[in-house]
Amino acid sequence: MSFLPAQLIRKKRFKGAHSKEELEFLVNGYTSGAIPDYQMSAWLMAVCLSGMTDQETSWLTVAMMNSGRKLDFSNLKSKAIDKHSTGGVGDKTSLIIAPLVAAAEIPVPMMAGRGLGHTGGTLDKLESIPGFDVRLDLEKFKVLIGQLGTAIIGQTKEICPADLKLYSLRDVTGTVDSIPLICASIMSKKLAEGVGGLILDVKYGSGAFMKTLPEAVALAKGLVNIGHHAGISIAALLTQMDQPLGRYIGNSCEVRECLEIMDGSYLKTPKPSLYEDTKELSLALASQMLILSGKYSEISAAREMVNSLLSGGQALSKFYELCRAQGGKIDQLPTQAKHEIVIEAQQDGILRSYNVEEIGLAGIELGAGRRRAEDQIDHLAGIEIFFKIGEPVEKDAPLFRLFANSDRGFKEATSRLLAATKISDAPVQVEPLIAGVVTPEGVFYAH
Amino acid sequence: MSFLPAQLIRKKRFKGAHSKEELEFLVNGYTSGAIPDYQMSAWLMAVCLSGMTDQETSWLTVAMMNSGRKLDFSNLKSKAIDKHSTGGVGDKTSLIIAPLVAAAEIPVPMMAGRGLGHTGGTLDKLESIPGFDVRLDLEKFKVLIGQLGTAIIGQTKEICPADLKLYSLRDVTGTVDSIPLICASIMSKKLAEGVGGLILDVKYGSGAFMKTLPEAVALAKGLVNIGHHAGISIAALLTQMDQPLGRYIGNSCEVRECLEIMDGSYLKTPKPSLYEDTKELSLALASQMLILSGKYSEISAAREMVNSLLSGGQALSKFYELCRAQGGKIDQLPTQAKHEIVIEAQQDGILRSYNVEEIGLAGIELGAGRRRAEDQIDHLAGIEIFFKIGEPVEKDAPLFRLFANSDRGFKEATSRLLAATKISDAPVQVEPLIAGVVTPEGVFYAH
Repeated sequence: MSFLPAQLIRKKRFKGAHSKEELEFLVNGYTSGAIPDYQMSAWLMAVCLSGMTDQETSWLTVAMMNSGRKLDFSNLKSKAIDKHSTGGVGDKTSLIIAPLVAAAEIPVPMMAGRGLGHTGGTLDKLESIPGFDVRLDLEKFKVLIGQLGTAIIGQTKEICPADLKLYSLRDVTGTVDSIPLICASIMSKKLAEGVGGLILDVKYGSGAFMKTLPEAVALAKGLVNIGHHAGISIAALLTQMDQPLGRYIGNSCEVRECLEIMDGSYLKTPKPSLYEDTKELSLALASQMLILSGKYSEISAAREMVNSLLSGGQALSKFYELCRAQGGKIDQLPTQAKHEIVIEAQQDGILRSYNVEEIGLAGIELGAGRRRAEDQIDHLAGIEIFFKIGEPVEKDAPLFRLFANSDRGFKEATSRLLAATKISDAPVQVEPLIAGVVTPEGVFYAH
Repeated sequence: MSFLPAQLIRKKRFKGAHSKEELEFLVNGYTSGAIPDYQMSAWLMAVCLSGMTDQETSWLTVAMMNSGRKLDFSNLKSKAIDKHSTGGVGDKTSLIIAPLVAAAEIPVPMMAGRGLGHTGGTLDKLESIPGFDVRLDLEKFKVLIGQLGTAIIGQTKEICPADLKLYSLRDVTGTVDSIPLICASIMSKKLAEGVGGLILDVKYGSGAFMKTLPEAVALAKGLVNIGHHAGISIAALLTQMDQPLGRYIGNSCEVRECLEIMDGSYLKTPKPSLYEDTKELSLALASQMLILSGKYSEISAAREMVNSLLSGGQALSKFYELCRAQGGKIDQLPTQAKHEIVIEAQQDGILRSYNVEEIGLAGIELGAGRRRAEDQIDHLAGIEIFFKIGEPVEKDAPLFRLFANSDRGFKEATSRLLAATKISDAPVQVEPLIAGVVTPEGVFYAH
């Protein structure tokens, strides 16, 4: 069906609702080049300001999904389940969840991303393992899912080319932060993966894209709605990002943190409690994935299963298998950066708050992330944190350890970290890690 | 000063107000090609939906004006005054006003437009005079203004290149109908002409771009505000476009109507009242121009002067001079089209209403206007009307005469015209031709 692009732009400008055919026309026309960038960007801005209904967002998502290749895992014995996080600082749970859920004999075909803005990316973390190849082709990917139960690769150009092109345009036209556009971008890729279920980790707080819980709920509802309409099992955990997750922020150091959780050695470190949130969030997300697979109906049974697979070492074995299968030499994981400094507390008090976005940006200063897409990452660069919110801090106690192969970012990172950390005398109310869950049935807040 | 385009787009998206420097950066960057179409169209859509303050619109206008050459008529003895109409059907007053005001020794450097949508254009009308050249260069234009007091040419590429580029983009991105963007487009060109005063004919009704009086008032206020801030004398008449102006709609026939008004021969036609609105609006606009020139302070004295220059034949003499100076052979004006038909009334009654946009589109069917920019105009094609709103009509009386060099549009034009004309028994309230005037001091409605 054919339409005039300018008329569709005007329709959205004046808050009209698009038909399925109109959205297909826009997505297909833009992907093929028949609709130029300047018309699409005007339409995107009209969407940002006029909004889209849930129905329109679902149709847009499916049109974007159909712009490229779709995988199919329906040949497997169990439903394939993936996990997606909206992004955070120190957010390394994928490295634990993929092998852990695969160890429960639920396939996890994971397509992950790179660091974006102040947040890290699973692919960058895996690439700190010498030899680890995240660029497997889709045939090899499918084979590994069949053999191992999991594999982790990057987005390929065959999947959702419409999203690739639209995202680049949104990035330069001020149209990134729109809930319908974000939902369609995330879900089109996940649906193209051919999974039967998806758990979402929708983060809120100073280190997340959504700064408040209500914004996170709106995003989670949008995502869950699309997945539900597309016929997959889906749920979202609403999780806190007001402090970095776990002990480390970086790449090889985050892999190390996951290994220490999976082999239990974290318990022998000076402060095991620094690992608790990483471990807890991994187990919570993994339990939900077991439920979404349909193999478990009680969350307590699912939780017991993932607990035992983690503490029994089966998750670690699967992680080793995963590394070997993708060429990664985990025994050669580098750990020692050339330079390091420690930042000490400048006063006594209670750790009141972190500006987590600033902490993420300090990591980028060190080389742990990219300023521009073409920047090289220093896989050894990172930040160790020593305190969680609500803990007492003594003057001169170490607050952060910074490490990198070049010390040129230390000064800037130090001033960012000090400005990002508030210590005060007043007691602090610590928010729970998981605020609630969003399912197709509604929003359920934790007590 | 340099900015990030995406940040300026976001600023407008979230209803921020731009600084003068930001607007200059956008206009200059777009004109030079440094800012691509896709960023500018997203910004234009954000302006459509978030609006602009009067101050922003003024700054945008000046930045657009400064994108090209500016004329200067300050060497002349009197202030140069131009007239701009927002467009209508049968709107031919420029052909009378330019020579009439020039005859009052007030320079009228007129840059006119071509037919757009259902409305006609002064340039197309003048080109129906054999030899009339509207493409004089700016040097020749200035010489004629000095010698004759008036000349009428088309927009040149040297004037407001930013507007030329922006208008093309707005046309294909659904961003034409935005009051700040319309105001900046009109006023940047008029200010670049170097006039000291401007009278605006802001039309409302079924044949105008603004369908209602409140919309016309909003547009008039925006235009007057910009001119006032730019330091020129400016006012707007709010005029009715619920019926075509005058007796004829077309090109050579509209020139003929103006000649008949200027030489008084219209009084010998079967129904001189058909010419009354064209004559009245021309005199009203011309009187205002005399006031804006600063040479007259009383509207009654100005009106008396233009009346006497029109009835005394001085406007006609000046029109002949104008034609000769621009190469036009007015004695060779063609008048006889190859084909004609008459459409008759299908019932008795009172002429209740016209859908004037449809009448304009019927003229395009005949060849009097363009469907696409590259279409050739049939200068002889046109429509004669026989009744004004509120007049009694008898069944079988001629309602319209259609004429053209090809009869291929007659059928479509006939059905459009019949559908556009409502005749009923109920008496009709006839609206005044001029609803009011907008000046920098405020809006003054006619009683």
